[in-house]
Order: sequence, then structure tokens, then C-alpha cells
Amino acid sequence: MPHYNLAFLGFGNVGRALARLFLRKQDELKTRYDLTFSVTGIATGRRGAAIDPNGLDLERALQIVESGGNLSSIHNQQSAIKDNLDFIRNSHAHALFENTPVSYNDGEPAITHIRTALELGLHALTANKGPVVHAHRALTELAASKGVHFFHESTVMDGAPIFSLFRGTLPAAQLLSFRGVLNSTTNLILGRMENGETFDDAVKYAQAIGIAETDPSGDVDGWDAAIKVSALVTVLMDIPLKPHDVDRTGIGGLTSADIARAQAEGKRYKLVCSASRTENGVSARVAPELVSGESPMYGVSGTSSIIQFETDVLGQLSVVEDNPGPHTTAYGLLADFLNAVRK
Amino acid sequence: MPHYNLAFLGFGNVGRALARLFLRKQDELKTRYDLTFSVTGIATGRRGAAIDPNGLDLERALQIVESGGNLSSIHNQQSAIKDNLDFIRNSHAHALFENTPVSYNDGEPAITHIRTALELGLHALTANKGPVVHAHRALTELAASKGVHFFHESTVMDGAPIFSLFRGTLPAAQLLSFRGVLNSTTNLILGRMENGETFDDAVKYAQAIGIAETDPSGDVDGWDAAIKVSALVTVLMDIPLKPHDVDRTGIGGLTSADIARAQAEGKRYKLVCSASRTENGVSARVAPELVSGESPMYGVSGTSSIIQFETDVLGQLSVVEDNPGPHTTAYGLLADFLNAVRK
Repeated sequence: MPHYNLAFLGFGNVGRALARLFLRKQDELKTRYDLTFSVTGIATGRRGAAIDPNGLDLERALQIVESGGNLSSIHNQQSAIKDNLDFIRNSHAHALFENTPVSYNDGEPAITHIRTALELGLHALTANKGPVVHAHRALTELAASKGVHFFHESTVMDGAPIFSLFRGTLPAAQLLSFRGVLNSTTNLILGRMENGETFDDAVKYAQAIGIAETDPSGDVDGWDAAIKVSALVTVLMDIPLKPHDVDRTGIGGLTSADIARAQAEGKRYKLVCSASRTENGVSARVAPELVSGESPMYGVSGTSSIIQFETDVLGQLSVVEDNPGPHTTAYGLLADFLNAVRK
Repeated sequence: MPHYNLAFLGFGNVGRALARLFLRKQDELKTRYDLTFSVTGIATGRRGAAIDPNGLDLERALQIVESGGNLSSIHNQQSAIKDNLDFIRNSHAHALFENTPVSYNDGEPAITHIRTALELGLHALTANKGPVVHAHRALTELAASKGVHFFHESTVMDGAPIFSLFRGTLPAAQLLSFRGVLNSTTNLILGRMENGETFDDAVKYAQAIGIAETDPSGDVDGWDAAIKVSALVTVLMDIPLKPHDVDRTGIGGLTSADIARAQAEGKRYKLVCSASRTENGVSARVAPELVSGESPMYGVSGTSSIIQFETDVLGQLSVVEDNPGPHTTAYGLLADFLNAVRK
């Protein structure tokens, strides 16, 4: 039975949800997938780092971090951990879960973390969109040359299978175009405006429940959606496309009157992400669009999301995800790991 | 580069669409999947059968069948083909596409065809629900013992990835329940009744465009939907369940007044397929249900279909298929073949 050592770089909501999921699935991984694992390294942003080649006590690590302690108390090596690259090099791991904060400008330092791991022959699994948008092809080629995998299922629609769908279950399918509602904050805001709230109050609500950030412009102006379009085009169409190359309009120009008028016609505004292959490459767009009750997008409310794929082999195939959260992002990372190591 | 010999048992709309898809994808299979193929056998219901160990001319075979000829004119073996089992045994194939007419009562003769193929070490791929509902476990175990695969993606929602989703891209996910609109004939009828047609006229329309059969009771009474529920429960929950064990209500009891009243409330009737794990096994049901605009089911119109999965690892994951047809069923069979033979 193969045994895998795992390293967690980043141990926030997603990293900890992943640790709990591994604990919950431990027996199932043994019986269904014939594998066992140890977590040999955990590095956090503000709660220190620990390595133990014999496997850390994961329950205890969770407890230490969640009670405000420092992981250095369970570090079990002679030399201290200097930095994240030093952590990766000395983690004794076969797979790295990279969950550090994202940088959309250049994808760093996550790209360097992942490159370091791949060069050492570790599988690299991430929920971080930066490396996908800025270095997908280079990292994928590096992984292949080392006989390992760089997977990133959770970067779009949390753990819902999108990238693995085309990799695993739609062989010989060419993606011609897609349309989707991929940013949950704006979808939540538009839904609350349909229920009579002003734009400002809806933003305040989204901030209060922790969905929108203090500066909501990344969502409201369509940047997060554009980054997801960029990731999908780059990976699924194999056309490298930067977020700045996506024709982008946010929801800031929509008034309550616009939304009420749409409702009176039985329609809804959605911030629609779309891309189509063209003769010279791809045309990609993020913009508010009117959606009627005949479209599956119409019923996608709150933090739910949808993507509709047009391929050369099926009519139209859509995937809808409801009720996402850190636990579903964590599942995408677990699935990436299992897809990387199983035959 | 591996070379695969293929046999087509059944060469109706789906079998011929599959043949055309193989011809269209021939170069892509070589470049992307590093494989080549020959069709060494074709057996039809009324247009004869042919075997050629060196590969039949597929274009010519299509032409013969579609112009009302007989395939015996291109049969290239000394002895004549006695019957379907004789065809399988002498087909020189590595993979059998079983597309003979379905029998819902006992799954025969398709089960015997598939068993014969698997025993000879052929992969068996089918769009036929009978063998899934009546012999899934036995055929899957037989396939495993011979080192080949029994796949049947196109039995539910045509070529949309449902079975391969759980097999391939949702590792370590436990299916707890599902809900879906899986019968396109009843969905089309209900949609036309929303537009003011009577039940009888809507049935006549569905018959005129070739969706409903002369005796529409298999669809209208919910039998086709119950068979799909049975297939999904049997395979995805690993609980053998026969169509008769599904609690089944058709759409025959719905009046135009019921449907108008639902519309006035912003709702729609859908023939909903559902199943949930229970303490003792599973509870499975087919019945008309009122669906509101908040549900992705609401926007699933005409011959489109949807399935919503509740698992222990994601919130709710739905798959929607629009514009199905023989070509999408054919794609599911091609995908099954590629998933069976690739690493």
C-alpha cells in the first residue's frame, strides 16, 4: 500500500478544512484507494511552521493554530525553518498543497513555491489562481518532465470538477466557447437588489457575512470574474490569456431601476463570464447581461455558480455548484491529490 | 502506437452517428491519444452483417446501410455469420459497441452480447439501459476479472458525463441523494402545455418530431424515468434497484388548469426523478413536482435534462445537458472507449 507524505504551505480556512477532510477520509482512502498518508510539514502565515519526517499529529497542529499557538512547538528537526522554500525543500513530502495568499499581479510567491516543489519531484496542488493565470503552461510542462502533476481544480467554482472534467471525462472534446456566472459576491449583490435593497446596502451585507472584502472593487468591477475567465481560457482552450485581456464591465453601472425593469419582464441581471474561440484566438468578456427564465443561469442564486460549455461533441453541457465554502475548496484539493497519485 | 479493432453490434441512428464521429476524430485520436483503429465488424438488425479482419471500409458500410443495401456484400470471411454471438466471437475486435434495441424486462439479448464480449476479453461499451439495470454488478465484475471495462455513459443524459464523473473526477465522494429531470419527452410535453396546448396535442407533437413513441406510455407513465433512477442508484450508490422498486407517478394526472395555476405562481411542473440513501438502503421516486424560479430545474426546457447531486464533500453539484441527439449519445460511447483504453 503506497504511503504519501504531505506538506501544507498555508494553513488558513482552506488549509485547515483540507486537514480535517483528510482526517475524516483517512479510512476511506485506505479501503477505496489503497493508500495511507502522513502530514510531514505545515507552514502558516503567522503561527509558525513545523516539520516531522515521521508525521505530525494533525489534530494537535489544528488545535495549536486555532488556539493562537505556534507550530514551532511541534517542530521536530535540528535546524529551524528559514523560509517557505526552505520549508518545501526539507518537508520530506511527496505532495505540496500550496494555499498561500494570492497575488493577481504576478502570481508570486506561489509560482516560486510550486516550481520549487515540482523541481524536487513533488506533486503540486493549489487553490491559488495566480500561478494558473501567470504560469500554467510552464508549470504543467515542468511537472510532466518530473513525472508529477500540477493540478488546480479549486481555482474556479471551488471543488466542482471543471478542469478535471475536460482532463478526465470529456476525452477528444474541443471546447468552443463557455458562458458562466462565476463570481458569487456580485451574484449575491444582484439577488439582494432584486429583493429591493440598494446597491450600497447589498454590498454592506456581502461584507458583513464575509463574502465581499473591505474594498469590494475586485468583485464589483469584475476583476475576480476576469481572472477566472483567464484561467479557463488558458487551461481549457490552451490559449494563454491574461486578466487584462478580458473585455470587462462590472456591475457598478446597474441601478435598482434597471433591476426592477428586468424583473417586470421576467428576467434577471447576471454578471456573465464568456469566451469563444475566434479565427485568431479567443474573444473573452465579463459584463452584466439580461438572462431569461429559459436559461439555467436564471435559477443560479446567491453564492451559487454555473458554467455552460459548448463543445464540438455535445450540445451544451452545464455545471452548477450550490452552497460552496472552504470545505468544498478543500475537496477540490483532495480530489487533485487523488487524481495525481492514483493509476 | 496501439491499434484497436472495433465491432459495432447495432447500426441504427446511434451506431451510425458513432461511426461518423470515429471518422471525424480519426486524426485527433492519433495525435492526442496516440491510437489508431479499424472497424473489423458491423452487424445490423435488417441490413446484414460483415466482418473483415483487415478493417472494413466504414464510409462504404455507412453508404450501403443508408441506401438500403446489405452488408453481406462486403463480408470478407469464408463462413457466413450465423447470429450475433457468432458475430462477436469472430469479429477480431478489442472493443464491442453494443447498440441493439433495449429490452427493459430482462435486459436480453444485450446482456448475453456483453457477457460474451467480456469473456473473450473485449471492452464492452453500450448506450443500452437494460444491462445496467439488470446485470451491472455481474458484468462489471466479469470485466474486471478479464482486465477490460464495461462502460455505459450514454444510458443516462446521453453523452453528458455522469457515470464517469463519479468514476473519474469525484474521487472519495459519497453520493447521498440526487434529483433530476431525466425524461425529455415529458419535459417537452409539460413545456408545450405551459404554452397553452392540451395534453393530447402536446403528445401528438412529441410523436410527430420523433421524440415520443406511438405508445407514449413508457414516457408519460414515468417508466423511462424510473429505469434511469434505477441505473443511477445501482451504479452510483452501489445499491441494486429494479425499476419496479421506484415509487412512480407519471404526468397523466396533470391538467392544463394545474399547469396554468403553477405558472400564475411563477412555478413549473417537472417530472422529477429522485433518490436518497436511507438507513436501510435507498428511497427512490419519480413524480411531477412544482419547481420555483430559484431552482436550476426551472430553466431546463424542452428536451434538455438536469441532475443535481448531493454528496458528502460538495454542497450541491448539478449537470445540465441541452440539445441532445444521436450524436451526443455517440460521443458518450466514444468517451467510454477512450476512457477504457487510455492510461
